[in-house]
Amino acid sequence: MSDAQGRVTAGLVVIGNEILSGRTQDANTAYLARFLNDAGVRLMEVRVVPDVEADIVEAVNQLRRRHAYLFTTGGIGPTHDDITSAAVAKALGRPLTRHPEAERRLFAYYPEERRTPARMKMADTPEGADLVDNPISTAPGFRVENVFVLAGVPKIMQAMLDGVRPLLKGGRPVSSRTLKVEAGEGDVAATLSEVQARHGAVDIGSYPFFQQGLFGTSVVVRSDDGTRLDEAFLDLERALAEQGVATAEEGG
Amino acid sequence: MSDAQGRVTAGLVVIGNEILSGRTQDANTAYLARFLNDAGVRLMEVRVVPDVEADIVEAVNQLRRRHAYLFTTGGIGPTHDDITSAAVAKALGRPLTRHPEAERRLFAYYPEERRTPARMKMADTPEGADLVDNPISTAPGFRVENVFVLAGVPKIMQAMLDGVRPLLKGGRPVSSRTLKVEAGEGDVAATLSEVQARHGAVDIGSYPFFQQGLFGTSVVVRSDDGTRLDEAFLDLERALAEQGVATAEEGG
Repeated sequence: MSDAQGRVTAGLVVIGNEILSGRTQDANTAYLARFLNDAGVRLMEVRVVPDVEADIVEAVNQLRRRHAYLFTTGGIGPTHDDITSAAVAKALGRPLTRHPEAERRLFAYYPEERRTPARMKMADTPEGADLVDNPISTAPGFRVENVFVLAGVPKIMQAMLDGVRPLLKGGRPVSSRTLKVEAGEGDVAATLSEVQARHGAVDIGSYPFFQQGLFGTSVVVRSDDGTRLDEAFLDLERALAEQGVATAEEGG
Repeated sequence: MSDAQGRVTAGLVVIGNEILSGRTQDANTAYLARFLNDAGVRLMEVRVVPDVEADIVEAVNQLRRRHAYLFTTGGIGPTHDDITSAAVAKALGRPLTRHPEAERRLFAYYPEERRTPARMKMADTPEGADLVDNPISTAPGFRVENVFVLAGVPKIMQAMLDGVRPLLKGGRPVSSRTLKVEAGEGDVAATLSEVQARHGAVDIGSYPFFQQGLFGTSVVVRSDDGTRLDEAFLDLERALAEQGVATAEEGG
């Protein structure tokens, strides 16, 4: 499944009251975005929803239908507020069942006195799910249809992605080049606009920065076509030089 | 406008390709969440969308109808990828017009050679908008109906919120108390579940942590009713002590 521009796209549903209360700063979006980019998949939208079944079901159903892949993070631990697996089962119209291999892993990992019913509940998945390994704390994530259900703890989420990578069929990865410009955004906006108009195959983004007492602009050119990316970047450098603005490629 | 539980709620639309590409880590969600909490408003959902008009319009229209307030961050600068004001105007069915007071401020702030058409475009708002002051770099945010349109640069967004605060009619602010528990989530899950069941007026969230070689659990109790919060917290401490688990209140 790819979109009208031939891109393979993904959505992300971040589940957790702790993000919406401001207690926790989400770090999974940025990591997943870069991971997907390397896999040739574009993260197109993110929703942060509370630990409320109806909200999770709605977000999962909207996003899984729009994108080749949907990821969720959070809510797969052992406590009463961990309701993601049940909500995803409901969204997909599948029963929530004990996954024998997940159960076996938890059984092997926890000594008897720590093998609580709450922990064993982490072996429940929507029927037909394939496990996603958790090399850190055992309790697995899973994939069912095009939905990947991952942990919320960043280190565990990141480790799970190692197992996800071979399952993704991406398009061409997006490359980017960044030009640091010694001028404010408003001083170069017209030039950027002209360069963007000449190069439809690239996305030109501009971001203000403040450094050593000066306002400047980082201009990021992105494309899944390396040749066109380089062409647009050269044109950008040329156009800004013509305007009399100093530039330098970041990391270049 | 408040929800079925009498809470005043809000949504947030974060606009920007740079968040979805992983180039930039969003910091506005956590800040806005805490700001709203102090104002007695609950942030209930967040959507991150790209710099695409149709996506912004859809997110704005869905969220502004569900919540007392909707906030947007990002996309109000001078460049071609700054399309938030136009998209919000479209979502609300209002023309985008030059705001005279915004124009006056930009005119006063920028010397003539920097008064580019791109910069003056930052004075365009949906018709009928009230300005939100920007004490840092002048170009204002705005409020129209229940939608607050703010800058994406965190320092500017935060400064704009000072002007937003008096315009919000919140409910009771939510307070929280946190108990650090020397046991894994799975060891205390049943107890937390029982305490939650006895105290419907509070939200009990649990978050694993790893510190000095030990797994522990932070249990956060939240409520807009201070008395019930304290009752639930005491019950939680008692129930965990009865289970033989060591606890200490964070900051307590």
